[in-house]
Amino acid sequence: MIKWKVYVDNNGTTPLREEVCQLITKTLKCGWANPSSQSDEADEAARLIKISREKVCNVLNCSEEEITFTSGGTESNNMVLNSISKLYAKPHIVVSAVEHDSVSACARNLNKQGLITLTEVELNSDGNILPEDVCAACTSETRLVSIMLANNETGVVFDVATITRLVKKERPGLLVHTDAAQALGKIPVDVSALGVDYLTLVGHKFYGPRVGALYHRLTAPLLPLLFGGGQECGMRPGTENTPMIAGLGLAAQLASQGLSRHSRHMLKCRDYLESRLLETFGDKLVINCKDSPRLPNTSNFAIFLENCRSVNVLERVKFVASKGAACHSHTATKPSQNLLNSGVSYEVAMNSIRVSLGIHNSIEDVDFIIEDLIKVTNELAQL
Amino acid sequence: MIKWKVYVDNNGTTPLREEVCQLITKTLKCGWANPSSQSDEADEAARLIKISREKVCNVLNCSEEEITFTSGGTESNNMVLNSISKLYAKPHIVVSAVEHDSVSACARNLNKQGLITLTEVELNSDGNILPEDVCAACTSETRLVSIMLANNETGVVFDVATITRLVKKERPGLLVHTDAAQALGKIPVDVSALGVDYLTLVGHKFYGPRVGALYHRLTAPLLPLLFGGGQECGMRPGTENTPMIAGLGLAAQLASQGLSRHSRHMLKCRDYLESRLLETFGDKLVINCKDSPRLPNTSNFAIFLENCRSVNVLERVKFVASKGAACHSHTATKPSQNLLNSGVSYEVAMNSIRVSLGIHNSIEDVDFIIEDLIKVTNELAQL
Repeated sequence: MIKWKVYVDNNGTTPLREEVCQLITKTLKCGWANPSSQSDEADEAARLIKISREKVCNVLNCSEEEITFTSGGTESNNMVLNSISKLYAKPHIVVSAVEHDSVSACARNLNKQGLITLTEVELNSDGNILPEDVCAACTSETRLVSIMLANNETGVVFDVATITRLVKKERPGLLVHTDAAQALGKIPVDVSALGVDYLTLVGHKFYGPRVGALYHRLTAPLLPLLFGGGQECGMRPGTENTPMIAGLGLAAQLASQGLSRHSRHMLKCRDYLESRLLETFGDKLVINCKDSPRLPNTSNFAIFLENCRSVNVLERVKFVASKGAACHSHTATKPSQNLLNSGVSYEVAMNSIRVSLGIHNSIEDVDFIIEDLIKVTNELAQL
Repeated sequence: MIKWKVYVDNNGTTPLREEVCQLITKTLKCGWANPSSQSDEADEAARLIKISREKVCNVLNCSEEEITFTSGGTESNNMVLNSISKLYAKPHIVVSAVEHDSVSACARNLNKQGLITLTEVELNSDGNILPEDVCAACTSETRLVSIMLANNETGVVFDVATITRLVKKERPGLLVHTDAAQALGKIPVDVSALGVDYLTLVGHKFYGPRVGALYHRLTAPLLPLLFGGGQECGMRPGTENTPMIAGLGLAAQLASQGLSRHSRHMLKCRDYLESRLLETFGDKLVINCKDSPRLPNTSNFAIFLENCRSVNVLERVKFVASKGAACHSHTATKPSQNLLNSGVSYEVAMNSIRVSLGIHNSIEDVDFIIEDLIKVTNELAQL
């Protein structure tokens, strides 16, 4: 059995809420019928999906026709980029230089195939993206701008509302997508306030299951990525993963209902963490992107003591944090490219640790982290 | 709450086994860590995925590198067809005229886009596909043959082993895919015996969860459909749905272990059903494709009494069966195209009902079905 640790890698994934686990388990047993069939059981399965869709709509402030359930954030992001590449003749797409791989790798692949042209907008030295830089990257050929709502590694919250307003003002008809994977349950996510045409959600970032959703404005064009049965209005064929979909809706609702309480709590813990880090490590400490608006739960920092590269520290601490995105966790000897692209120097990036707090973390957890860091950095310094 | 009924729509979907439910529930609680992260919890999640992959490999008789987990059968099928369309310059693809939509709609879409040329091989009057007809459809441009292992509507088992042997003998290098969605847990599924290069599996057809897998022979080329993180060796990015994947492996193992017992039991019930149908309805009964090798659990039949079109009967019976594929269940006024393509006449197809038995059904269920059919057909005749 696994020994319990302080888990502060919530931007990587989150434990499921007990209520969500219970609903999924119940649905595995009582909602297994094929929602496309004709029976009372099938109607019940379809009803569970409808309820989930309504919950997601309430959270995002949109209508039911605007939500398609997907297998996850990767599929949602790929759907948008692939749609644009097929709907237009070699469209220009603008993304930030720090998108999640499911945007950047997908866009680069389409670019390599000659199906799109691509501009990756650089960030400023505070890890933020300037709306005017996004505007400047757009041309008359640009059909899509895809900028994440909050960065998974630095926690910087990008001003997608302003970006959307500006690019649409300058170039009416241009479409905007945001990958909001890191945002729900941490900051408000309202598609109307953001003004975006597409928005990606994924359950396991807000204490829900490993499925996702894609918001697509009624007026925004979208093509399916998969072909098959008529599920999800033909937009996403395949027998619906009813238990996981049911769990996604409930998790989104709970994340939204608890937003102000939880974000306040996480912010309190995060600010306490950073003040204790500063008090402990003083001028040996660098907190990345701290002058930009950040998610309330994320602290990305480096400690400059001997042997304190993130990989050495993380191997020894008793809490669970990370160097950055989980997808890159096995490239231990390289610094995070997204940190480098966020204005962080190579040396700082090599030393950086991401602590991403969750709703279950406490001030006591932060004290544990600090004590543990003191112990480990002392050990490493003596090596 | 839903009133319990006799459920005989197991080709549409199946209830999850209790052991599989328990494993999924346990994994939701204890296996939620991100398998790509660096922690004991992450290692445990990765271990659960590895165990599942080993189980699937044992069932299919292949190696771990040859299995990619997907969101379901639709994604697995789409992956194969899309790969071939991208790997070769306008390849010719041969499929049967009765493939599941996730093969046929995908292939037709690629054909419509001009990315492939397509031949849909017709079936004989017994709903079977002749290996020589598949061979005859292949040309020097053919790169892929995709023939399902067993038909979801008629239950006819196609001789994929012979098809594979013949087409590969005539055209070395040609690749063969089979959609085995309906086969596992009903008939043996061994990739070595079948000789195929690709094979599609989906859990919810064998008392498992709504995720799937794709077998791809080590020597068979495959491209990812999605781009993102490096999960599944880069072949299927996106944080793994660990609970569902764990459940898939266990369900496959249980389906394989119980195969001979369960298939014997289902065959006994199916043969009893058909003998009782014949005894009850005599020359008013047509059993579709009964002269072809069929899955042990499937009976597709029509009763020729007044008002006995499948839609009228299915609306009134107390057991849960179907007209055919769930994806098409809302087109009640049309007969199943796949039945028509299986050599079934329009009139018979309009009257046809599919009973697909499961491991939980009993001889008593069959008696219930017969009594119910007698009652309903009498009522309908009097209308």
